[in-house]
Amino acid sequence: MHDDMHQLTSSLKQSNGSKIVMLVADGLGGLPLEPGGKTELETARTPNLDELVRQGVCGGSIPVKPGISPGSGPGHLALFGYDPLKYLIGRGALEATGIGFELGPNDVAIRGNYCTLDAAGNISDRRAGRISSEESAPLAKKLATIKIPGVEVFVEPVKEHRFVVVLRGPGLGGDVHDTDPQATGVPPLEPAPSKPGSEKTVEIVRQFVAQSRKILSAEPKANGLTLRGFSARPALASFAEVYGLRAAAIAVYPMYKGLARLVGMTIVGKAQTLAEQVDVLTQYWSQYDFFFMHFKYTDSTGEDGNFAEKVRRIEELDAVMPRISALNPDVLIVTGDHSTPSFLKSHSWHPVPTLLWSMACRTDPCTKFGESDCLHGGLGQFEAKYLMLLALSNAGRLGKFGA
Amino acid sequence: MHDDMHQLTSSLKQSNGSKIVMLVADGLGGLPLEPGGKTELETARTPNLDELVRQGVCGGSIPVKPGISPGSGPGHLALFGYDPLKYLIGRGALEATGIGFELGPNDVAIRGNYCTLDAAGNISDRRAGRISSEESAPLAKKLATIKIPGVEVFVEPVKEHRFVVVLRGPGLGGDVHDTDPQATGVPPLEPAPSKPGSEKTVEIVRQFVAQSRKILSAEPKANGLTLRGFSARPALASFAEVYGLRAAAIAVYPMYKGLARLVGMTIVGKAQTLAEQVDVLTQYWSQYDFFFMHFKYTDSTGEDGNFAEKVRRIEELDAVMPRISALNPDVLIVTGDHSTPSFLKSHSWHPVPTLLWSMACRTDPCTKFGESDCLHGGLGQFEAKYLMLLALSNAGRLGKFGA
Repeated sequence: MHDDMHQLTSSLKQSNGSKIVMLVADGLGGLPLEPGGKTELETARTPNLDELVRQGVCGGSIPVKPGISPGSGPGHLALFGYDPLKYLIGRGALEATGIGFELGPNDVAIRGNYCTLDAAGNISDRRAGRISSEESAPLAKKLATIKIPGVEVFVEPVKEHRFVVVLRGPGLGGDVHDTDPQATGVPPLEPAPSKPGSEKTVEIVRQFVAQSRKILSAEPKANGLTLRGFSARPALASFAEVYGLRAAAIAVYPMYKGLARLVGMTIVGKAQTLAEQVDVLTQYWSQYDFFFMHFKYTDSTGEDGNFAEKVRRIEELDAVMPRISALNPDVLIVTGDHSTPSFLKSHSWHPVPTLLWSMACRTDPCTKFGESDCLHGGLGQFEAKYLMLLALSNAGRLGKFGA
Repeated sequence: MHDDMHQLTSSLKQSNGSKIVMLVADGLGGLPLEPGGKTELETARTPNLDELVRQGVCGGSIPVKPGISPGSGPGHLALFGYDPLKYLIGRGALEATGIGFELGPNDVAIRGNYCTLDAAGNISDRRAGRISSEESAPLAKKLATIKIPGVEVFVEPVKEHRFVVVLRGPGLGGDVHDTDPQATGVPPLEPAPSKPGSEKTVEIVRQFVAQSRKILSAEPKANGLTLRGFSARPALASFAEVYGLRAAAIAVYPMYKGLARLVGMTIVGKAQTLAEQVDVLTQYWSQYDFFFMHFKYTDSTGEDGNFAEKVRRIEELDAVMPRISALNPDVLIVTGDHSTPSFLKSHSWHPVPTLLWSMACRTDPCTKFGESDCLHGGLGQFEAKYLMLLALSNAGRLGKFGA
């Protein structure tokens, strides 16, 4: 029984030298500001995307399941073809990924919070008075000096009272309970395994906590810490294994580079702007089969509730499409990992407008890239996790299932 | 938990004397030859099908999952309501089915290739110089004389260097590794079990190989053989058990008769033409509840890349529709097991235009049987494995689930 689509996909994969581009406009989908109005994407002037829509096939991508608003982790895993309900990225691993920490197979990542302890050792402030990033960064440097036999210890600052700890060594399990009691007036919890196999991690964490208490003892606010979201690097089969694709990621922000790295993509270039991203795409065109290109600003403007700016960012994206098309990809996909309507100022569950262009696609009546047109597109509404199958088949990279 | 839809269906099934016709036009779905053009089905003049479309409900059937192009096996199992990712037909069983060999419950089917062995016993040609079917057929007759205590041995020629072996006897497992090393310069592999329970099969195969080597030893090209795709008859509950239907199959080609037989349908008639198939349908109308009628030529013309001929075959199909309607079926379904666009000359993943007519269907705005109209049909895009549930409910043969 093929209960795992990856097993099936891997058994059907075939190579043919074709090129696939998946352009992810983060948070692409939106909402009108008033009933009967247009969404950000519908408002934007997008002549180049519309031309692709007329030749291609459209639909609405459901990131996880109807009604589920995903974070960046599950949103991208789904687009990459990894069932987001099956392949979970632990909070610690996601936090480490988000700051660009390159997790290895022997790593356990942990989210840390500085806290304030009173004379009795009880937590009086769970966030150490929300100390500034400037105050917090030197503390991470101090904690990073901790030595524990048999493992490497990394400590990296995040924002304000938050930091990341990564323990690297053989035989470390990630199944450890949070030490954050989620309450004040009580001491941090002792580390304890939540499943067998993580006893070694617990012992090392105990030593880490003991040493850190000494290092932080003189701090006025951040004289204690709690640890949460213990997680091993998720075991994700690579794009090469599952799809037979040499995959490259062209992203500006560490989180998306990190997610791409988790599925075995190579991070190429050091682009900071969209134009530079297309430069990198052009530069590496011959060396890879699949290109994931990430555009952040359709999400951040949505989060800010800035409808007009999201429209402008979409038009910025539209303007570079001819340069991408000029490379003659065999399959060109434009989608998002979720919707981020300015109206909601947050990630949402709404299906994401998606276009797929290839010579083998069955085109549909859509003429304008937008939520309304995608409703009657040929891809219908589909779960994002199937998009990679459509990409592969349109590229001629998927053999027949059964005779 | 109803993890098996068959369990649910079986518990809800009820009888009422209604008749269901499922007409499968193999490879029905297509593509335009150029952007903006019409597909084969859209090009065809189909007044009778269009009349059914106007009264019925349409949609797009996804054979397996988005992006997956199925072979005939999974394509038909899905239409018959058997999850094609759960119920796999082994390659040997499918090959035997394809040549009309009637597999029994104690059978293990195996695909064989003649090969050329050099003096040292190493394979010098994996396909025995692709000997002709004329040369190959007598060899199968010779191999069929092999006697092994405790089992029956059948050997049937396929095409050129290919043949099928069926071992029939109690306690035979189908989990045996291929003996084809997929390389030349090495001998065929010794048979070996891939899972416990197939040791007896391995022992019998060993004897079969030893005897066949003697029989073939004097052959100039086909002096050896390799065996692949060992598979027991798939354990599929019958249409009677799952649906309570007396089901008949009216097909011309052995493969489709074989697939129908695997799910417990009775093969009726000996029709060679579409008109004869309708004659058989008429003749057996009173004796069965469900009729699977298979039309091959929409697939074969697609595989040939012959757009015009596929159009003509669709029009041929349309012409017999009044004779089928005249029988007053309670449910009439026209669909395909997958798309075979002439443009691609192969099976494809594109959803298959599907129409369902019944007095209880909720009709939709579709007016012309074709890919574009089906996009806004009332059935939406649905996985083929659910079509039988729609057939049963429209026939009044499925009771309420829960009180």
